[in-house]
Amino acid sequence: MNVIVGQSGGPTAVINASLAGVYQAAVNSGAKKVYGMKNGIAGLLSEKIVLLNEVLDDDLKIELLKRTPSSFLGSCRYKLKSFETDTTEYEKVFSLLKKYEIECFFYIGGNDSMDTIAKLSAYGKKIGSNVRFVGVPKTIDNDLMITDHTPGYGSAAKFVATTMKEIIRDATVYGTEYVTIVEIMGRNAGWLTAASALARGGDCDGVDMICLPEIPFTVEGFIRKVAEMQKKKNSIVIAVSEGVKLPDGRYVCELSDNVQDVDSFGHKKLTGTARFLANECAKRLKTKTRAIELSTLQRCSGHLASRTDITEAYQVGGAAVLAAVSGQSGVAITLDRISDKPYQCKTGVVDVNKIANYEKKIPIEWINETHTDMEQAFLDYARPLIQAELPPFYVDGLPYHITLKA
Amino acid sequence: MNVIVGQSGGPTAVINASLAGVYQAAVNSGAKKVYGMKNGIAGLLSEKIVLLNEVLDDDLKIELLKRTPSSFLGSCRYKLKSFETDTTEYEKVFSLLKKYEIECFFYIGGNDSMDTIAKLSAYGKKIGSNVRFVGVPKTIDNDLMITDHTPGYGSAAKFVATTMKEIIRDATVYGTEYVTIVEIMGRNAGWLTAASALARGGDCDGVDMICLPEIPFTVEGFIRKVAEMQKKKNSIVIAVSEGVKLPDGRYVCELSDNVQDVDSFGHKKLTGTARFLANECAKRLKTKTRAIELSTLQRCSGHLASRTDITEAYQVGGAAVLAAVSGQSGVAITLDRISDKPYQCKTGVVDVNKIANYEKKIPIEWINETHTDMEQAFLDYARPLIQAELPPFYVDGLPYHITLKA
Repeated sequence: MNVIVGQSGGPTAVINASLAGVYQAAVNSGAKKVYGMKNGIAGLLSEKIVLLNEVLDDDLKIELLKRTPSSFLGSCRYKLKSFETDTTEYEKVFSLLKKYEIECFFYIGGNDSMDTIAKLSAYGKKIGSNVRFVGVPKTIDNDLMITDHTPGYGSAAKFVATTMKEIIRDATVYGTEYVTIVEIMGRNAGWLTAASALARGGDCDGVDMICLPEIPFTVEGFIRKVAEMQKKKNSIVIAVSEGVKLPDGRYVCELSDNVQDVDSFGHKKLTGTARFLANECAKRLKTKTRAIELSTLQRCSGHLASRTDITEAYQVGGAAVLAAVSGQSGVAITLDRISDKPYQCKTGVVDVNKIANYEKKIPIEWINETHTDMEQAFLDYARPLIQAELPPFYVDGLPYHITLKA
Repeated sequence: MNVIVGQSGGPTAVINASLAGVYQAAVNSGAKKVYGMKNGIAGLLSEKIVLLNEVLDDDLKIELLKRTPSSFLGSCRYKLKSFETDTTEYEKVFSLLKKYEIECFFYIGGNDSMDTIAKLSAYGKKIGSNVRFVGVPKTIDNDLMITDHTPGYGSAAKFVATTMKEIIRDATVYGTEYVTIVEIMGRNAGWLTAASALARGGDCDGVDMICLPEIPFTVEGFIRKVAEMQKKKNSIVIAVSEGVKLPDGRYVCELSDNVQDVDSFGHKKLTGTARFLANECAKRLKTKTRAIELSTLQRCSGHLASRTDITEAYQVGGAAVLAAVSGQSGVAITLDRISDKPYQCKTGVVDVNKIANYEKKIPIEWINETHTDMEQAFLDYARPLIQAELPPFYVDGLPYHITLKA
């Protein structure tokens, strides 16, 4: 048995832990060759393939892989056309699977990537192929259906909450009036922005306001709330999702004059929300402001990964192999929470069509009445996911990473 | 003997390690009471004082202090007027020193703060006071004269280099054309931006260009260099100082339309350089771009502090106490490098007037000929400063900090 694995979509701190999980479970299940697609399905279509048995030929490299952020195999944002309109790409993929004698196909990615698994398995079924296709969820956005949470989210949440604590400390040292607005990723679902609520504790007042894309946003309402808070407190720190939207559906960042562009899925590039709001506060409230974008740091900060997240990412990779070996196809692996206190999760298997192309938003009852903070239920949900650390291997003062030579 | 200590200027990840050093050395030297100024000299002037013996009453708290970023006592940006024009503030300070029977005064800060030490000690001498005034240097900017480097720089440099490695990994996963511009603090001296050169190694190609405030900058020259690099490489990552200046002396960020303001020292708020340059690249080169500002994260990331830096910050605090106890005043503590390989540093004492109000820039011979990268001499200088880690105490998944209750 040979197998192939690819990575797709935005990087995370633990996407390679899932790759390690797939690799080791495949070898343990008797796979002779474990291939990797370079740059996901887009690379596979031009036969860019690497033999992982050669690249990961000792245990230290596999451990290093678990502690290396951002897709080791490279990534892509590529959506297969429907095979009802054009089978060219499908024929190409299946001819390559035949050529390399591949029986199982694993794809580590978000909801766009689960679409690839859904389409390939459906096409395979149609042509009578017995190759199994299994999705391995990952995304910092945590917006996949069915699964309790997605690998990648815990580490990004740990980065957000840690960074928020540090930003709050920094912003309060002068004791002067200051509004700090921190922009966090999340186009339609505010899971990662909500993670800033984890900063609050005995040693930290926490953020003063959280603005989620789930809640329609008005600039006037925002300014009014800031002005209210300023009456009680000098330094105010606000977490705002890049995806906050006006009641008419436009993104708040569209109000700014930023150069915009669009990615290959047609998604608008969202950036500048915090800066726009900070400028509005400065102008209208005559206050000092600072805008901070956590940018790509929040999705690739391997140095601050959650050990819980790394462990689960690894388990989800392994569970995908077991599912494929047992004959399942067109499925994705889920994390099913057994209990909150103590936290326990196990892996599950679900029809990939129940995940592909859907988005899971934050339940409205987890947001407080004034739409400025998270309820305890959210904290109980998210806190276990950021527990414990697995530090990088530091070499000469810096985290050492494993890389795929060109 | 009673003593007092304050913190001033921008926070760093290790400014509290110096505070711990002062506190423990003072207690060991027989100080009965160790007072802390809240919000530096500005707070002292309104008698905002805390008794550290009460606040730091067990060893765990002191260890926690060493691992807590951003000024524990609060900070200020406050410059004393010359006592030749107005002695009011000086009289106030000296009356408080008398009231609290304080014999030694320590001030942890950058070159603006060393000015405070210079003025207070000069005034003390003039009025025949025997209070000793000693400066404890800190600044992420590393721009102080005489000392080999300043506590705070090593941790910020470690954050910059680590983050650059992670950003580079993130920016290369798609294999597509991309220009990422990362803005790093440093108004006139490029030490911290230069630290991005440390990212290069066997596992990382490093940043593709470094733009320092020491080198006059033209937008045309920048765009030309980026266009050249794009011929050879798809994903380009550039480190640019917030302080890069045009040949006419204006900051590059002044070319953008950002809301500007000015701090209490009259320094312009520098921000938007990376965004302006990314927009120029997008317009002129028709390429995808991303601007990232490391913002305050680079100065308060206690979770990624350099252990070397923490140790030295602690030593510098202790050395300040020994200097004061031995009768020295109007001095600051330096770090004097004894050897590079193996790296060794010891503390020294210098007339504070040789440090106050001066700025140390990067020697031009440490910058390569095309002004795009650092020479080996810089790497040999900076590499020892980022060595080793001292992780925070993690509680419930997040770094735990010690805080001064209001």
